[in-house]
Order: sequence, then structure tokens, then C-alpha cells
Amino acid sequence: MACKPINVLITGANRGLGLEMVKQIMKTQRPLSMVFACCRDPDGEKAQGLRELAVDNIIKIIRMDVADPKSIKEAASQVGSLLGQSGLNLIINNAAVALPSTFSATTPEQMHDCYRTNAVGPTCIIQEFLPYLRTAAKDSEMPGMSIRKAAVVNISTFVSSIGLAKDTYKKFPCLPYRASKAALNMMVVCASVDLQQDEILCMLLHPGWVRTDMGGPNGEIDPQESVQSMLEVMSSMTEKHHGKLLDYKGKSMPW
Amino acid sequence: MACKPINVLITGANRGLGLEMVKQIMKTQRPLSMVFACCRDPDGEKAQGLRELAVDNIIKIIRMDVADPKSIKEAASQVGSLLGQSGLNLIINNAAVALPSTFSATTPEQMHDCYRTNAVGPTCIIQEFLPYLRTAAKDSEMPGMSIRKAAVVNISTFVSSIGLAKDTYKKFPCLPYRASKAALNMMVVCASVDLQQDEILCMLLHPGWVRTDMGGPNGEIDPQESVQSMLEVMSSMTEKHHGKLLDYKGKSMPW
Ligand SMILES: NC(=O)c1ccc[n+]([C@@H]2O[C@H](COP(=O)([O-])OP(=O)(O)OC[C@H]3O[C@@H](n4cnc5c(N)ncnc54)[C@H](OP(=O)(O)O)[C@@H]3O)[C@@H](O)[C@H]2O)c1
Ligand SMILES: NC(=O)c1ccc[n+]([C@@H]2O[C@H](COP(=O)([O-])OP(=O)(O)OC[C@H]3O[C@@H](n4cnc5c(N)ncnc54)[C@H](OP(=O)(O)O)[C@@H]3O)[C@@H](O)[C@H]2O)c1
Repeated sequence: MACKPINVLITGANRGLGLEMVKQIMKTQRPLSMVFACCRDPDGEKAQGLRELAVDNIIKIIRMDVADPKSIKEAASQVGSLLGQSGLNLIINNAAVALPSTFSATTPEQMHDCYRTNAVGPTCIIQEFLPYLRTAAKDSEMPGMSIRKAAVVNISTFVSSIGLAKDTYKKFPCLPYRASKAALNMMVVCASVDLQQDEILCMLLHPGWVRTDMGGPNGEIDPQESVQSMLEVMSSMTEKHHGKLLDYKGKSMPW
Repeated sequence: MACKPINVLITGANRGLGLEMVKQIMKTQRPLSMVFACCRDPDGEKAQGLRELAVDNIIKIIRMDVADPKSIKEAASQVGSLLGQSGLNLIINNAAVALPSTFSATTPEQMHDCYRTNAVGPTCIIQEFLPYLRTAAKDSEMPGMSIRKAAVVNISTFVSSIGLAKDTYKKFPCLPYRASKAALNMMVVCASVDLQQDEILCMLLHPGWVRTDMGGPNGEIDPQESVQSMLEVMSSMTEKHHGKLLDYKGKSMPW
């Protein structure tokens, strides 16, 4: 049976891991119908690389500020128009902000800013795009769960692990970021319970410590390696991985 | 060696578990110097029971809205004046709000409201009262960690456990509350790393499912039983419990 072309959406697709995902998905995840590459400023300088990629008509650049629920709604309506009767097979909730604050230096504003982008944003995105994921799940003839049927992959981090925090905190304090990502993990596990009946896979991935603007120059791997490995893990995921947190090599991580 | 009188602070002390804590601490945790019973509306109807208790001069009613960093700062300055040269031995971060929302019904406002009160508030409280906790730790001649030396006990919940969420979500959806309490857990573990050198105990307690306004009439235990058991656990805590999440019977819970 030949694979059906799929529709994929990626947030924060203009740089870092998001941009690399667009590149590699275009090469390795064929057949593709549309790739919705979302970013908050499609016409700005920081989207130059994405605009260059988008000469390929499969890529549709969509304006979406994940910190703004209204912008998420508008993006969903635009994507809905482009999809027509088709469903959306895969969402990668990738956009995020990090702040290096220690416990003592953390301010309420930093905590809410990270929460807005990293936890509330992904919640709204799953809610708004759920009808399209449901269509994809219903239209699919594949049994069980997979990213070519209907899935939400949420990019989390090893510093979201409360169980590892005693060991990781001194090297990576970033309390507002950690707190928001722990909340993200909780949201995704709860959402996974609700999405189960629709056979929509919902899980979390840690990309490794990667040399992007966020990871900095001391990161352990480059974006190419991280994304290649994450895409291999994603491609082999089934209902067994529903509601789990895996690292980029597919290893399960503690909450 | 006779015990030194201690100073204790409790948030959300006007009803529910907070009020019961004030009552039982007055009976079982002697010798006491001052008990700072914090609530957001000391003169309101909902603080009637607390005002009646406060005929005992040990109890000082302090205005503190934990959702408002400015109010936390003002409370800290008022408590500081009352403490004089003395330290603050025990803070119980108890005040919280819960919302019953499922994943689909959750709004950004609900998420931020729970986060503000349940995660950001306790962060600001530890930050603002830290100087008084440090004084208490320095003044103490006790080795190691204990609530009669210097401690922050943070009231969390079993629904904060991401590891248990697949099993608990259907019965207790309350996504905004869960996400905020998972974030609280992360904050407390990080704070515990920073407070270690000062020998200030910092941990989390789940009070059980209790018949309060929040727990509702179907709760499994009454506030008396919950608080009695929590106070027994607290009294026996040492540095072994630093950075941990325990239930009201002292059993360790998964993150
Ligand atoms: N790099 C690492 O070592 C590492 C480790 C663990 C987890 N992660 C996770 O991996 C994901 C990608 O991180 P990265 O390393 O690629 O970070 P990055 O280089 O800093 O890129 C972040 C991306 O998110 C976008 N973004 C931020 N706020 C946004 C908003 N409100 N609306 C829309 N887009 C927004 C940025 O867009 P702008 O250009 O408009 O700012 C950018 O495209 C994140 O979820 C991060 O938490 C990274
Ligand atoms: N009851 C349970 O089954 C259960 C289970 C697990 C965990 N817990 C936890 O146990 C703790 C106590 O809960 P409870 O059952 O006693 O709840 P409750 O009966 O609803 O009482 C909540 C208390 O928090 C106070 N509060 C809320 N927002 C506040 C704010 N912004 N500033 C100051 N005070 C505020 C309330 O004051 P007002 O009167 O001014 O509203 C009240 O005193 C909470 O941390 C809760 O998450 C309870």
C-alpha cells in the first residue's frame, strides 16, 4: 500500500530546531502534501532562511505568535482554509523561550512569560487544531497511532524533569523555563488521555542539548544531528509512546 | 535541652486546611513565639473563624494576597517588624486555588490564574521571607534540618504527579491546577538546592483528599485528620526529606 501524503505543522519554524525540522521533513518524510511552517514574523529578518526554503510550494509560511491565543486562532483558520477537506497529520509544538534565571533572580514576569509561550501556547494550539487532527485520524486507514496518521509531538527538555532537577539545576538554573516545561509535561499527559479515543498520538520529546541560539555554543550536538535523530524516533512511534517523554534517541525520561 | 519557642507563618489561614493548621499548631507545636496567620481579607466574613482564634495573642493576623507580589512584600515587611531580631522558623505555603477544567475547557486565563496563586506566589514568598529563615537557621543550635530550625513546607497535591496523571486525570481533570502544581514541585526542588547551604528544609506535602471547600464533600478525610497527620510528618522531618514530595502519611510520591 503506497503511503498517503501528509500535512505537517511546525511552530517556531524560522530558526533553530524548527527551521532544521522543516528542512529535514522536506527531505525524509515524503510523500508530503503541505508543511505549515509557523513563525511570528514571516516578513522579518529572522525568517529569511525560511522564506528561502519556501520557494518549494509544499511549504506554507503561516503567521503564528504562540504567546497570543488570538494569533493561534487566526493561524488555525488560515490553515483550515488551506487544508479544505483534508486533515492535519502532525503538529510539532517546537516554539519556546528560555530564561537563565536562578531561583533567587526569578521574577513573576519571567515566570508568566515562559508559561505563556511554553505551556499555555501549546495548550491553545492543540485545542484549536484538534478538529483537523481528528479529520486526519478518521481519514486514515492505519491501525493504532503514528505520526503519519495523527499526532502532536511536543518539544520538552531534560530540564523539565523534576526527578533530575537536583542534579541539573546548578548547571542549568533557568527556573521560569523549567517550571513552564514541567507544566507542559503535565498538560500533554492530560491531553493524551482525552485524545486517546480519537487515536491521536500525543507525546513529548527532548531534543538533546543542541547548539542553537537557545542551547548556546557549548551544546553537545548540532541541530542536524538532533533533528535527524528525533525524526527517526518520531517515525517509529506507536501507541506505546502515547503520553510519554522520550529523548532524541528514543530513551524514556523520568518526570 | 529545652526547646526554643518558634515563629511560624501560614498562608490561606482563614479557612480550610490553613485554619485547621493554625488551630492544631497552637495546641501541639509549643513552645511557640508567634504564629503569623496570613489571609487576603483579614476583616472580611471569611476570616471570622480566624479572628475568633486570634484572641490568643500568639496569633498575628497578617494581610497577604499570594497572587499579588506587592502584597507579599508588604506582608514580609510587617512580619519583619514583628520578628525584630528573631528569625522565622517555619513557612507553610498553603493558600491555593483550584479549577475543575478539563483539557478542552481550559482557557489561558484559568491557566495564568492558577499559576499566579499556586506557583508564582509561593516562589515570591520564599524569596521575600528568606532573610528571616536564614536568621532562624543561623540562630539555631540544632544540627541538620528540621521545622523547629528553619523550613518551608509547600502544600502540593497528588494530582501534581505527572507520573500518576494518566490514572487520575479522568476523575480529577482540573488541568490549570495540575499544571500549576507540577510547576510548584519544580520550583521547590530548585529552591531546595539553593537553600541547602543555609540548612533550610524545603519540601512538598500532599494533604490527602480532604473535605474542605476545595476538596468537596466526597473527600476521604476531614481537615482534623489531614492536619494532625501532616504535623506529625512535619515534626519528624530531617534533611532526608529535603526536596521531596510526601503524602500526609509520610509516604514518598512520584513526580
Ligand atoms: N537548544 C537546546 O539545547 C534545547 C534543549 C532542550 C529543549 N529545547 C527545546 O527545543 C525547542 C526549540 O529550541 P531551539 O533550540 O530551536 O530555540 P531557539 O533557537 O531559541 O528558537 C526558538 C524558536 O521559537 C520561536 N518562538 C519563541 N517565542 C515564540 C512565539 N511567541 N511565537 C512564535 N514563535 C516563537 C522563535 O521565533 P523568533 O525567531 O520569532 O524568536 C524561534 O523560532 C524549544 O521548545 C526548546 O525548549 C532546546
Ligand atoms: N482539599 C483537598 O482535598 C486538597 C487536596 C490536595 C491538595 N490540597 C491543597 O491544600 C491546600 C489547602 O487547600 P484547602 O482544601 O484548604 O482549600 P480551600 O478550602 O479552598 O482554602 C483555600 C485557602 O487558600 C486561600 N487563598 C486562595 N487564594 C488566595 C490568595 N490569592 N491569597 C491568599 N489566600 C488565598 C483561601 O482564602 P480565601 O478565603 O480568601 O479565598 C483559603 O484560605 C491547597 O494548597 C490545596 O491545593 C487540598
